[in-house]
Amino acid sequence: MKIAVLPGDGIGTEIVAEAIRVLDVLDLSFEMESALVGGAAYEANGHPLPESTLKLAKEADAVLFGAVGDWKYDRLERSLRPEQAILGLRKNLGLFANFRPAICYEQLVGASSLKPELIAGLDILIIRELTGDIYFGQPRGRRTAVDGHFPGAEEAFDTMRYSRPEIERIAHVAFQAARKRSKRVTSVDKANVLETFQLWKDVVTEVGKEYPDVELDHMYVDNAAMQLVKAPKKFDVVVTGNMFGDILSDEAAMLTGSIGMLPSASLNASNQGLYEPSHGSAPDIAGKGVANPLATILSAAMMLRFSLNQAEAADRIESAVKHVLAQGLRTADIWSEGTTKVGTREMGDAVVAAI
Amino acid sequence: MKIAVLPGDGIGTEIVAEAIRVLDVLDLSFEMESALVGGAAYEANGHPLPESTLKLAKEADAVLFGAVGDWKYDRLERSLRPEQAILGLRKNLGLFANFRPAICYEQLVGASSLKPELIAGLDILIIRELTGDIYFGQPRGRRTAVDGHFPGAEEAFDTMRYSRPEIERIAHVAFQAARKRSKRVTSVDKANVLETFQLWKDVVTEVGKEYPDVELDHMYVDNAAMQLVKAPKKFDVVVTGNMFGDILSDEAAMLTGSIGMLPSASLNASNQGLYEPSHGSAPDIAGKGVANPLATILSAAMMLRFSLNQAEAADRIESAVKHVLAQGLRTADIWSEGTTKVGTREMGDAVVAAI
Ligand SMILES: CC(C)[C@H](C(=O)O)[C@@H](O)C(=O)O
Ligand SMILES: CC(C)[C@H](C(=O)O)[C@@H](O)C(=O)O
Repeated sequence: MKIAVLPGDGIGTEIVAEAIRVLDVLDLSFEMESALVGGAAYEANGHPLPESTLKLAKEADAVLFGAVGDWKYDRLERSLRPEQAILGLRKNLGLFANFRPAICYEQLVGASSLKPELIAGLDILIIRELTGDIYFGQPRGRRTAVDGHFPGAEEAFDTMRYSRPEIERIAHVAFQAARKRSKRVTSVDKANVLETFQLWKDVVTEVGKEYPDVELDHMYVDNAAMQLVKAPKKFDVVVTGNMFGDILSDEAAMLTGSIGMLPSASLNASNQGLYEPSHGSAPDIAGKGVANPLATILSAAMMLRFSLNQAEAADRIESAVKHVLAQGLRTADIWSEGTTKVGTREMGDAVVAAI
Repeated sequence: MKIAVLPGDGIGTEIVAEAIRVLDVLDLSFEMESALVGGAAYEANGHPLPESTLKLAKEADAVLFGAVGDWKYDRLERSLRPEQAILGLRKNLGLFANFRPAICYEQLVGASSLKPELIAGLDILIIRELTGDIYFGQPRGRRTAVDGHFPGAEEAFDTMRYSRPEIERIAHVAFQAARKRSKRVTSVDKANVLETFQLWKDVVTEVGKEYPDVELDHMYVDNAAMQLVKAPKKFDVVVTGNMFGDILSDEAAMLTGSIGMLPSASLNASNQGLYEPSHGSAPDIAGKGVANPLATILSAAMMLRFSLNQAEAADRIESAVKHVLAQGLRTADIWSEGTTKVGTREMGDAVVAAI
């Protein structure tokens, strides 16, 4: 088994280093190989996703990813910006199923913007389709408008699209995940306006008939954005498209108040996966040794469970993380009065010790 | 001056009736004419937006709109569903500028999901472009995929698009609104992925140069969905496209916990406008006399200010609403221990009395 390690930019290198120390101490037998990605790869090779990095990722059973991006690349043409690396990996590896848990840890309830009773015990799983929708639809570009409100004017356009089999496969992923949880799926669409999401709703409904033990409901995306704020605990599994999933998974993550704790997994049809924290590269705190490595450490646990067939080792990591929280150790992002503030490295040490 | 009154479905008739009583007591000289819209119009005429209703709306200086929609129309073909009425009105009247204030009233802080210190005093204005984007872009439909992940499969698609002048005019609206407030505009885009929103960002930046006194920043839509939860009070004016605006304006409204209080205005280039509460038709409580009429009453105030040149009368309505809140009167949606629960009609009575 081989893991491609792509730390990326900003706090990426620091947090991935801690995840690797945690993996090392578990003493499992797999190979790890690192490569540059994002801004770091652009600096070294002139491209955010060099051929060699892509090749390594494709050949590996799993990719452990840190984060990419920095304001300083904002003026580069789009195809050279760090975010293109993550889009390129998703596309080239066919990582269509993105798992974004939004969990509120007991000890971190106070970090949330929400009143404690609304957030304590939150455990939602957002499943976002990741290789379709308006992210990748062609045609797209700029042209002169031939109709619309201002014919003759310059316009920009993109294409939203989903095919029946693309919707079917992500729906199956959602229903199967729900079976291992509270057996409820909320499919989020905008079928009242978009052709794409009328097909989405129709297909999810059809697939749902194969899972009579799972309760399915449908919600418009605007309503979902509201219900997440009003009563997040009413959700179990949420399945939606790439664009709506981008927005709702981040909203849900922020509801917990502890996005520094939230891992993610992006899988393809053969369970090859890319694992990364839900947060970004945080260039403002990079290199200071204060970033929270726990989302990345928990992403490594997801990797062991989903792609490397090491569920027991995954459990050990997750228990260790709960243990350090119970010990009162907190990085700056989740620190509160009465707990002990630690840095990135100390947090990694504590998880290693707990294992 | 003429007002077209379109109560619509569900609680629409009840809440609009109270707004009309409030307008009546102000004794201003304008004509009002009612017509059916939404499901009610479909039942009577077989179409949610009959020609006669559209004609009335076009000829009026302002439209006072209740709400449309009911589960029972879910199985109709899309073009006959109640929501098409609102889309048709926006398109035919050219109502490109949607104003969605998210305000948290002092007495209603407790109704929010958020901790009081995060929400007290909230006063955001979301400006959503309302006649472009993926809502109206052509082509759209179903077809057989010729490329993508599953060539040969059935697919559905929609077109996102914005032209330069469409972006310019909504940007001007936002900067001008900001000048009357805290002079800050946040433009929300997804320029890192979408061609449409790269143009959006470029054009808003250009227009911003004409408003050197207004501070402009740009935020990706996923980040905006997070920052609204984390620190909503950091926003002043938010300007964004039709689809992102649909999601973010509802999220922001729900943050206040009192969506029953929030009005909206949708204007065209000649200040003709459609005014409606931010909430929906709530078929579950329709006909029970318990709906909150205040969002509709406050929409009538926006109508007086924006389309009918009666700013003073608008002030009187807004003061009256504050007064009834201070009296402790609450409909069920915003009721809490220690306040007086009233019905739709009694709430209308109280506002009339306060005027
Ligand atoms: C960086 C960006 C292209 C990406 C996305 O929009 O998918 C990010 O927001 C995410 O959610 O992983
Ligand atoms: C009913 C629906 C078509 C509409 C929209 O998506 O614009 C509604 O959600 C709104 O925000 O007014």
